[in-house]
Amino acid sequence: MNKTHQLKDILKTSNLDYLMEAHNGISAKIVEETGFKGIWASGLSISAQCGVRDSNELSYTQVLDICEYMSDATTIPILLDGDTGFGNFNNARRLVSKLEKINIAGVCIEDKLFPKTNSFIGSKQKLEDPEVFARKIQAMKDTQFDPNFQVVARVEAFISGYDAEEAVRRAEIYKEAGADSILMHSKKSTCEDIDNFMKLWENKHPVIIVPTTYHETPTQHFKDIGINTIIWANHNIRSSITAMQNTTKKIYDASNISCVNNDIVPVKEIFRLTNDAELRIAEKKYL
Amino acid sequence: MNKTHQLKDILKTSNLDYLMEAHNGISAKIVEETGFKGIWASGLSISAQCGVRDSNELSYTQVLDICEYMSDATTIPILLDGDTGFGNFNNARRLVSKLEKINIAGVCIEDKLFPKTNSFIGSKQKLEDPEVFARKIQAMKDTQFDPNFQVVARVEAFISGYDAEEAVRRAEIYKEAGADSILMHSKKSTCEDIDNFMKLWENKHPVIIVPTTYHETPTQHFKDIGINTIIWANHNIRSSITAMQNTTKKIYDASNISCVNNDIVPVKEIFRLTNDAELRIAEKKYL
Amino acid sequence: MNKTHQLKDILKTSNLDYLMEAHNGISAKIVEETGFKGIWASGLSISAQCGVRDSNELSYTQVLDICEYMSDATTIPILLDGDTGFGNFNNARRLVSKLEKINIAGVCIEDKLFPKTNSFIGSKQKLEDPEVFARKIQAMKDTQFDPNFQVVARVEAFISGYDAEEAVRRAEIYKEAGADSILMHSKKSTCEDIDNFMKLWENKHPVIIVPTTYHETPTQHFKDIGINTIIWANHNIRSSITAMQNTTKKIYDASNISCVNNDIVPVKEIFRLTNDAELRIAEKKYL
Amino acid sequence: MNKTHQLKDILKTSNLDYLMEAHNGISAKIVEETGFKGIWASGLSISAQCGVRDSNELSYTQVLDICEYMSDATTIPILLDGDTGFGNFNNARRLVSKLEKINIAGVCIEDKLFPKTNSFIGSKQKLEDPEVFARKIQAMKDTQFDPNFQVVARVEAFISGYDAEEAVRRAEIYKEAGADSILMHSKKSTCEDIDNFMKLWENKHPVIIVPTTYHETPTQHFKDIGINTIIWANHNIRSSITAMQNTTKKIYDASNISCVNNDIVPVKEIFRLTNDAELRIAEKKYL
Repeated sequence: MNKTHQLKDILKTSNLDYLMEAHNGISAKIVEETGFKGIWASGLSISAQCGVRDSNELSYTQVLDICEYMSDATTIPILLDGDTGFGNFNNARRLVSKLEKINIAGVCIEDKLFPKTNSFIGSKQKLEDPEVFARKIQAMKDTQFDPNFQVVARVEAFISGYDAEEAVRRAEIYKEAGADSILMHSKKSTCEDIDNFMKLWENKHPVIIVPTTYHETPTQHFKDIGINTIIWANHNIRSSITAMQNTTKKIYDASNISCVNNDIVPVKEIFRLTNDAELRIAEKKYL
Repeated sequence: MNKTHQLKDILKTSNLDYLMEAHNGISAKIVEETGFKGIWASGLSISAQCGVRDSNELSYTQVLDICEYMSDATTIPILLDGDTGFGNFNNARRLVSKLEKINIAGVCIEDKLFPKTNSFIGSKQKLEDPEVFARKIQAMKDTQFDPNFQVVARVEAFISGYDAEEAVRRAEIYKEAGADSILMHSKKSTCEDIDNFMKLWENKHPVIIVPTTYHETPTQHFKDIGINTIIWANHNIRSSITAMQNTTKKIYDASNISCVNNDIVPVKEIFRLTNDAELRIAEKKYL
Repeated sequence: MNKTHQLKDILKTSNLDYLMEAHNGISAKIVEETGFKGIWASGLSISAQCGVRDSNELSYTQVLDICEYMSDATTIPILLDGDTGFGNFNNARRLVSKLEKINIAGVCIEDKLFPKTNSFIGSKQKLEDPEVFARKIQAMKDTQFDPNFQVVARVEAFISGYDAEEAVRRAEIYKEAGADSILMHSKKSTCEDIDNFMKLWENKHPVIIVPTTYHETPTQHFKDIGINTIIWANHNIRSSITAMQNTTKKIYDASNISCVNNDIVPVKEIFRLTNDAELRIAEKKYL
Repeated sequence: MNKTHQLKDILKTSNLDYLMEAHNGISAKIVEETGFKGIWASGLSISAQCGVRDSNELSYTQVLDICEYMSDATTIPILLDGDTGFGNFNNARRLVSKLEKINIAGVCIEDKLFPKTNSFIGSKQKLEDPEVFARKIQAMKDTQFDPNFQVVARVEAFISGYDAEEAVRRAEIYKEAGADSILMHSKKSTCEDIDNFMKLWENKHPVIIVPTTYHETPTQHFKDIGINTIIWANHNIRSSITAMQNTTKKIYDASNISCVNNDIVPVKEIFRLTNDAELRIAEKKYL
């Protein structure tokens, strides 16, 4: 089953599935090896690993370059966090064509304005007109070559302070425009926004959530209210930052690496993760 | 003091200094914040984060793109692990010009053949003719615009099973060709190779070592024998792999992120590391 | 004299100077060899050579990659047609930093909205609020490291159907914001717009024009009314298209290349233009 | 019929077909519009348009970026001049995977050493060991996903001063290794080399020639001796250089563009070639 079909299964079937964040080739590989069925290529994490801000400081082709490493390193599907689509409908549909070439299985765009601001920063961010956003979704769906490629519409209504009625209104417009799934975002510390939305939504169309801030809600609750997919959105980049800060500090303080040597994978684990063995066999055959 | 001058100070002064590995913008930033004076842009780590092998699977421009993120994110100097220079003298001198543009302070090339194989893989790797390698060094030195840009010659004699005499012979040729410093590589579990080399070398020219395998040798010993710079070569990528494997596994097993939430930096630490605050201030001024 | 200083001289001195369009390394080299003092890196031409539309289908980093080839191939200054700056003030100021690294001497941005539409297409294109655009200019000027880097403000008032008063009003706001020069665009078949503007403008600040449509006006007239710089904006791409269409057709019809062999430069002219001789000499020295 | 199948038809059927050189999106589009069935993405021309030398100064990913523009702009197949494959078998097989993603239908590699030198420069260039080269071909064939992707083996025996026996010996080894076609290169001013080769070869496998220097031989002769494909290898870049040199000179001398305006395509021809009309229609639908 190809990657787009796999992603469609994750997003569209009624049972709860999970996407785990990755931000480069090695983190993507780790997500696959651990057992996850799919990957969330987080815009925040990708920007962060490059050392830049989640404000479209990376060009869309720079994002594509990183997605390509991730796609090449894995066999499970990747859903790209495509921000606002990097411009208008024409930029967004070009993005779809380019993503299909590098075997990215789907893209999520959000109803904000280019250049975007991360949803956890500030409040009352200005949203895109929902009709304009819907036509962007439509252009993307009209462009995709593979019928299983997934276009997800992310609703930022709660993020910008609107209520559940506005969230539903937008979600319906995007559903009608052809969005394969609705990502309903919230940054409350409880799942109140999501509960309110789901009550009104009545399982009209698949729903994805990102419980970064309302992580204390038991996952069973999201099953109970009919969520289709949960994204664990930024935990690999955050864990790698913690690890690197600690490791770098220990080495700096000790002026020695023995202090960390047993706490980190050996060099040969890098060779394993990048499948060096295949190259050694190939060298015997082709050199 | 500009970055090339800073790197020259690290490499050329007689006191022992350290370079810490980084492989993308965020790890480079962490190395700087922790207090290190300089960064080792490891070829192994850069390849690994992209999910590819340390065998020149990345093109030299792909490596440059990653170096540029690292350089933009930091104010301390970066020494790039330039493998064999990505081809002959002409490729190597083009590399120098490109590195200077993105404010990379120096590059280390090794006396192996393109495409390279990682030094920890196999044995008896074929080495470049030292006279040919010396002219590559010379071409690089003749090309650099900034007189303080550093070109380091990495001797792989020990790696390929040669003795200290061959290591010294090569180091002298490279020194004569204009190398600013000699990186003497060894993959023994003790510092025996390095000791043998240093006895014969008699501090003729600055020496860099990479004690990945002989990490149990106390750092004081390297001070005593006159080493100028130590590179901690791959510990950030290794610690990040460990952290991501553990974090991804915990989340996968728990189907929940609360289990890791307190063990990893919060999202706002990402904003701090990428200096989001500056953008918020700028938005007040320019939007 | 460095490239930014050279461009400043071209744009700011009272005598009339010219910039000639180029769109890749070889056209840039030809412009320099012919005697021009500076190069216009046309957005339309750069897009066209890539086979895409002048509607920000290229990402800003794709444009930078092409600018870098052009910059590397030449010693005269390049003014980049930077469209709207590829987003808001933050994208525009990042562009400045990146351009300085690849030794592009200046950038022109226009007071339209991202993604842009070519000025010769349609009419009544929506313009950016001049105060917002002015702060974008200011952010770019505040960002540049080299004090001689040039930021040019292109006024699209005439293109969108406004009169000379609006053109002057905008030009004044951009001048106050720090623009080094004003590019006053018009697509009339006569120089009427330009004449009207210049009468009101009274040489308050340097002015650039692009007489693609009003090419029949004698150049002396533009000297007389005080224009500082004229851009010949797209004639190299247009002449290369004509030539390639003709050459390809002749070869296709004849199933032979003798029919064109004497009408086109020999292969050795390619070697001369790319300075192959230098490499042959270097090979003697370094191989 | 997809592009690889189309290219297979061009290269493998017994009737004589032609590939015309292109080096960017616009030249590729022109080649298609004129009626050619396929495109030769010339390494010399691609390098030249970037302003660099045909000596692997471009990285393989820079070449891929340009190929992608060409592929996106056209519906006919492209055969890439892949030099020596940009390294060893592993680099060459990676190239194949990357080319398939951007819908390039085939690649030709030559039996020289990396970094390459253009065949028209110097003499007695050192050749790759034919057995090593054969295994590179084999690795590429083993890697391709699409069974119709074409791998062409270019024999440089004549270029390096060897005779027809050596040319045949190498061609046979490459044929056995799986090469889909043999490109037999010669830089004589007559077709003597080709004739000698074809007599010994006896139509064992499809043959491609590049009559840049022996262009005076009537094409009928090549039909008669059984050549399958002729490449017109660099005539678009050469014609565009001639045109740009002349146009730039005229404008420089006249300080005016009226002198060339009627000799070059109008701006609206650029819009036609890049299919601007489609975007205008799409804007009505999606904006």
